[in-house]
Amino acid sequence: MSNDVLSALSQVLEQRKQADPDSSYVASLYAKGLNKILEKVGEEATETILAAKDAERSGATKELIGETADLWFHSLIMLSQLGVGPDQVLEELDRRFGLSGLEEKASRKSS
Amino acid sequence: MSNDVLSALSQVLEQRKQADPDSSYVASLYAKGLNKILEKVGEEATETILAAKDAERSGATKELIGETADLWFHSLIMLSQLGVGPDQVLEELDRRFGLSGLEEKASRKSS
Amino acid sequence: MSNDVLSALSQVLEQRKQADPDSSYVASLYAKGLNKILEKVGEEATETILAAKDAERSGATKELIGETADLWFHSLIMLSQLGVGPDQVLEELDRRFGLSGLEEKASRKSS
Amino acid sequence: MSNDVLSALSQVLEQRKQADPDSSYVASLYAKGLNKILEKVGEEATETILAAKDAERSGATKELIGETADLWFHSLIMLSQLGVGPDQVLEELDRRFGLSGLEEKASRKSS
Repeated sequence: MSNDVLSALSQVLEQRKQADPDSSYVASLYAKGLNKILEKVGEEATETILAAKDAERSGATKELIGETADLWFHSLIMLSQLGVGPDQVLEELDRRFGLSGLEEKASRKSS
Repeated sequence: MSNDVLSALSQVLEQRKQADPDSSYVASLYAKGLNKILEKVGEEATETILAAKDAERSGATKELIGETADLWFHSLIMLSQLGVGPDQVLEELDRRFGLSGLEEKASRKSS
Repeated sequence: MSNDVLSALSQVLEQRKQADPDSSYVASLYAKGLNKILEKVGEEATETILAAKDAERSGATKELIGETADLWFHSLIMLSQLGVGPDQVLEELDRRFGLSGLEEKASRKSS
Repeated sequence: MSNDVLSALSQVLEQRKQADPDSSYVASLYAKGLNKILEKVGEEATETILAAKDAERSGATKELIGETADLWFHSLIMLSQLGVGPDQVLEELDRRFGLSGLEEKASRKSS
């Protein structure tokens, strides 16, 4: 599922690069430039941290999920602005944790 | 691909919850508690922002990819500590951007 | 000079606690609560970091000075919201670095 | 009091610029360069935010005071690395809030 989501979202972000800055939030962020995008990454990181502290206390996770979505979303815009796709980040995680190998082992176990 | 990566990584993180804190970095973070995990999220957000500024200047994106991987990785640990899986965040992004519908439309166009 | 500035600013912030939330920016922040104030601290920290990177490149420091002022200002509001004055932070710095002693030594040297 | 503290601390930081990087924490930070200093600013901002959330809950402010001291301290190192002194930030705050004027008015009131 997530494959489809991050890839599909990444395609949407690429399309918005051609769009009129007045036509969408993402197009307006690209037009404002990298500093504005990075301010949003920093803002969303702070809001995620605050939501996590509140979730720890209340047990409610709806806001945490929404803020993490915002953080990932704005980090995808940052990557896109610099010509990087989400697959390159996921390949790095795969490489570090040997997840492909891990999945292979898991599938062998269950066979 | 990313589907497999984030899901597989999330499974690894769940397994580490049972592990001896001395046995792995992730297990030691869980043992130190939420504040320590959130400090890492904040740290990696800052390092991602600095790497993005440097990538803008140099055109080299290797460090940016590595720091974004660190940021996503530590946000997965945060979610896991609070009982949330990556799928809940991806579903939220899907819902907001109507990505499933979008993919449907895309596949209809190409058919 | 700075003594006067931080103390005077701190007094202004205390006065705004009684003010109508619609009457000033600071009064509206108090009314919105600690999370909103901390979001601003996080935002201003990110903007300070970006301004520092830009200052390193351009040599111009005007924006860096403005963003650092914003960061210190919002951290004073945070302290005030939690019943702490700037003097307590300055005393901690004094204690750590033995600055009073240092000044004493400096004045003895110059005498 | 704060005047003396921030000015004295700023003088200490200037002296450390000449020091052997192995001789002190501050000298080692200068030698590592601006990115390392800004990582510390980001780290301390996150730790301050977490300490504020914990202070709100517990009423205890010792850690908040210590983390804010760390944040101000590392922002002074950042300024010093870029050739800016704390007085320039304090003058900006003074200018914005008309604090000198405010003090004048306050002293006239009390006379």
